[in-house]
Amino acid sequence: MEIFKTAAELQKFALDAKRSGKIIGLVPTMGYLHAGHASLIDIARKKADIVIVSIFVNPTQFGPTEDLDKYPRDFEHDLELCTQHGADVIYAPAPDAMYEADASTWVEEVKLSKVLCGVSRPIHFRGVTTVVAKLFNLTLPDIAVFGEKDAQQLLVIKRMVRDLNFPVEIIAAPLVRQNDGLALSSRNRYLSETEKSNALVLSQSLYAARGAIESHGLEGVDLIIEAMKEKITAAGGRVDYVEALDTANLEPPTAETKEVLLALAVFFGTTRLIDNQIIQVK
Amino acid sequence: MEIFKTAAELQKFALDAKRSGKIIGLVPTMGYLHAGHASLIDIARKKADIVIVSIFVNPTQFGPTEDLDKYPRDFEHDLELCTQHGADVIYAPAPDAMYEADASTWVEEVKLSKVLCGVSRPIHFRGVTTVVAKLFNLTLPDIAVFGEKDAQQLLVIKRMVRDLNFPVEIIAAPLVRQNDGLALSSRNRYLSETEKSNALVLSQSLYAARGAIESHGLEGVDLIIEAMKEKITAAGGRVDYVEALDTANLEPPTAETKEVLLALAVFFGTTRLIDNQIIQVK
Repeated sequence: MEIFKTAAELQKFALDAKRSGKIIGLVPTMGYLHAGHASLIDIARKKADIVIVSIFVNPTQFGPTEDLDKYPRDFEHDLELCTQHGADVIYAPAPDAMYEADASTWVEEVKLSKVLCGVSRPIHFRGVTTVVAKLFNLTLPDIAVFGEKDAQQLLVIKRMVRDLNFPVEIIAAPLVRQNDGLALSSRNRYLSETEKSNALVLSQSLYAARGAIESHGLEGVDLIIEAMKEKITAAGGRVDYVEALDTANLEPPTAETKEVLLALAVFFGTTRLIDNQIIQVK
Repeated sequence: MEIFKTAAELQKFALDAKRSGKIIGLVPTMGYLHAGHASLIDIARKKADIVIVSIFVNPTQFGPTEDLDKYPRDFEHDLELCTQHGADVIYAPAPDAMYEADASTWVEEVKLSKVLCGVSRPIHFRGVTTVVAKLFNLTLPDIAVFGEKDAQQLLVIKRMVRDLNFPVEIIAAPLVRQNDGLALSSRNRYLSETEKSNALVLSQSLYAARGAIESHGLEGVDLIIEAMKEKITAAGGRVDYVEALDTANLEPPTAETKEVLLALAVFFGTTRLIDNQIIQVK
């Protein structure tokens, strides 16, 4: 496994690989890797000749009051996980190596990124699309794997790829949960034992809502969401949002809706967790 | 020579070429090609195995009151010029084939694009950077050639390439003029004979100013610019701007400035012309 620290080294490697006809797979991460990330690497491993994992806590996707500084890091463990899962290259740039001091170019998706997490994190997705565009240009992937845990991010990235004609196939990897249902997240490490246990209400209420929508359709979805919010609040969560939106446009569902994203963001203590279900509608 | 009308055909061709190690050169144009464009194709021809010329009047870089509808088109003549200069591929998408109806992703440079033409054409450069990013992703060029006639565009594109890590070398091609000094532009065809003759004041006043700055430095640059404006106005031009800015950041020159862009935009009748000189400062 090779480790690159600079954009120039990485891009030269990727260009050589591309020119010799190799299929390149990219797994972009912020490090502190868990079984969810491992599943992304496994998918890339099956589809690509060369698997590149990027590890970079991207400052431009964090708001001024968010957890950039305390975001967990463990490069040795990340290295081990990448080795075990057969990655060929790790790209781990220094914090200030990714952006020039006078950088002035953004890639911005202005529709899908404005709802759900985009409301409380207004600059988040602009940072995500910009850094992902940079990583695409540095690694020239044929495929890139993103987790369904970040369902809105996945839709925004797919839209960016379509709109800007990136020659990259975006592959969605299923959300990975603990046995008790908690969605894996690097941010789970912020949670106390009590908070961890309280946070189980998220997956439980999502499963219940999914069952109700699959049985009865979207008729009563507003009531279902109200009930979820009450249950979550009763368990000690502070709701940022719980919403069901059409995955085609992230607008409220209509009679034409075929699939909804039921998504939530909830604080337990100071930790903001997200979780979701993608539900087929009859 | 091959002509592609759809993004899918073009991108497949480019990917195949890239994977077989070919060096790809791109010349992005809006068609109605003249000797200035031909010089860009000649440069690409010398440096690349495969030369792709795109011909697309990009709607997103025109403001609502601008000349999108009347912008001149002559595909047969463009075809002939591209053939004569040895282009391998023309990409000529239909007007509505380049953007999805619900496109929602922009590439935006937010510093260099805000001055000069960016003041009177506030959405222009966002359209340019977005379409050029799309063309880069569709043609996967190793080099791309842009004319110095559009000096600000060149700086904005170079900044975008740097900031987003596009694996593309941007080559600047010298501005091409008529024998009488008028900078070649597809928009010259809008000019009456009188306007064409009056517009010679642009290159003449730029040359005079260049001489003065090269002899005396930037001390008296404000007076030089005032004199240019008076001369241009006296010749029947309506000045949008005449400015001298540091090419490093498009800010007013300082004691550290090594190179200035002396640029102007002037209306003759309803036709807006641009011209410039890039001047080394002692």
